[in-house]
Amino acid sequence: MLGLMERAKVRLYVDQPLGQGQTVPLDRDHANYLFNVMRMGVGDAVALFNGRDGEWRTEVVQANKRAGVLACQGLSAPQGEVPDLWLIFAPIKKARTDFIVEKAAEMGARRILPVLTEFTNSERVRVDRLQAHCVEAAEQCGGTYVPEVAEPVKLDALLADWDPARQLMFCDESLAGGSSALSGVVAGQPWAILIGPEGGFSEGERKRLRALPFAHPVSLGPRILRADTAAVAAMALWQDCLGDWS
Amino acid sequence: MLGLMERAKVRLYVDQPLGQGQTVPLDRDHANYLFNVMRMGVGDAVALFNGRDGEWRTEVVQANKRAGVLACQGLSAPQGEVPDLWLIFAPIKKARTDFIVEKAAEMGARRILPVLTEFTNSERVRVDRLQAHCVEAAEQCGGTYVPEVAEPVKLDALLADWDPARQLMFCDESLAGGSSALSGVVAGQPWAILIGPEGGFSEGERKRLRALPFAHPVSLGPRILRADTAAVAAMALWQDCLGDWS
Repeated sequence: MLGLMERAKVRLYVDQPLGQGQTVPLDRDHANYLFNVMRMGVGDAVALFNGRDGEWRTEVVQANKRAGVLACQGLSAPQGEVPDLWLIFAPIKKARTDFIVEKAAEMGARRILPVLTEFTNSERVRVDRLQAHCVEAAEQCGGTYVPEVAEPVKLDALLADWDPARQLMFCDESLAGGSSALSGVVAGQPWAILIGPEGGFSEGERKRLRALPFAHPVSLGPRILRADTAAVAAMALWQDCLGDWS
Repeated sequence: MLGLMERAKVRLYVDQPLGQGQTVPLDRDHANYLFNVMRMGVGDAVALFNGRDGEWRTEVVQANKRAGVLACQGLSAPQGEVPDLWLIFAPIKKARTDFIVEKAAEMGARRILPVLTEFTNSERVRVDRLQAHCVEAAEQCGGTYVPEVAEPVKLDALLADWDPARQLMFCDESLAGGSSALSGVVAGQPWAILIGPEGGFSEGERKRLRALPFAHPVSLGPRILRADTAAVAAMALWQDCLGDWS
């Protein structure tokens, strides 16, 4: 890994492979960003990651208004791992859905699954937009991993297909108890966190969730949290108890 | 308390005292909201709270376009307590500062203190706007308590004046360890959580914070969190370990 070299100020996600001797042609958006918006040029340093090969320090070797080439110089951070945690959430208003996706990327979720519940006011979910938000969050938070955003699916279908080895943390407003439901759980298993819509789960959904052998209801306190707040709070408790925070 | 009566669909914060037999004159904004926006009228139910007297079910007894009167019918929720937790944060961009304040109200902070650190790009902080955000968050989250937003103060001045009985959770990116720094801490003490600016604390600030006998550095994992994410995550860990979630 690179030692004392100055860290690149700009950090971008690319699709291409990264490695010693590798050159990376830039698409039009990235070229515009680096050379017009950021006013960078040949010789300037850019950090790149692709979600697989770690973070590489690269140098601009060609710069045009609409194209350019970066050359890999050395690994600046090893490929990071995130715990096997999915965040499943019922889509809400656009700005808050964007926020949930951004936060899931920052908090280290491996996969993000929009789910349609009985009380979901499902505006159309644009998976490509949400995926772009994940990339942006990863660029910002210094992570080398970009979570995958799945196509929206109905809660019933998701549960019918569930791998029972994956534990499910389900936030239940009717409970008291904080994260105590997570203590005594064996670490190292795959997990998912399920956040309901603003209107909560229906009686039927709640009953079904509670009956699942892999479900762990957890309380997030006596106040009603918005879905976006609940998502961050639940991921924090999970990372702290079972993930890579401790 | 009221039993089986239907819960009011609209919930508002007012300044006036609430209690049995009390009538509450509406200001122009509230009258406009109830009678024009929500199209309510005489006989409709509204839930009111003022941060002191619990939540009251009231009924519209006079409705004009620009004024109106509500009459208290009965207590619908007792006055809630929040733990003695302050959230201290360095103001960031407007939208994210608004967000931090909203989340602090939802997560049950008692007081919110904007603080100016060495690396704070201090845009002007409008305390009245932030206070209005707190009120809105409390209206939404069903809480009866509205945290107070303090005037911004420099970190040095805040620490010089600090009551050493108040413990300080300070989020330190250079640490590992999750919430383990909080285990073994006696519950029931006053606390504060300090969230640094996007650029982090300066070396001097970090040194000073670490030397404080009441400071408890806590890690929020291996990824860099934005200040708004860190605020929610830190409050979640605190509420879960030492607050009213468990």
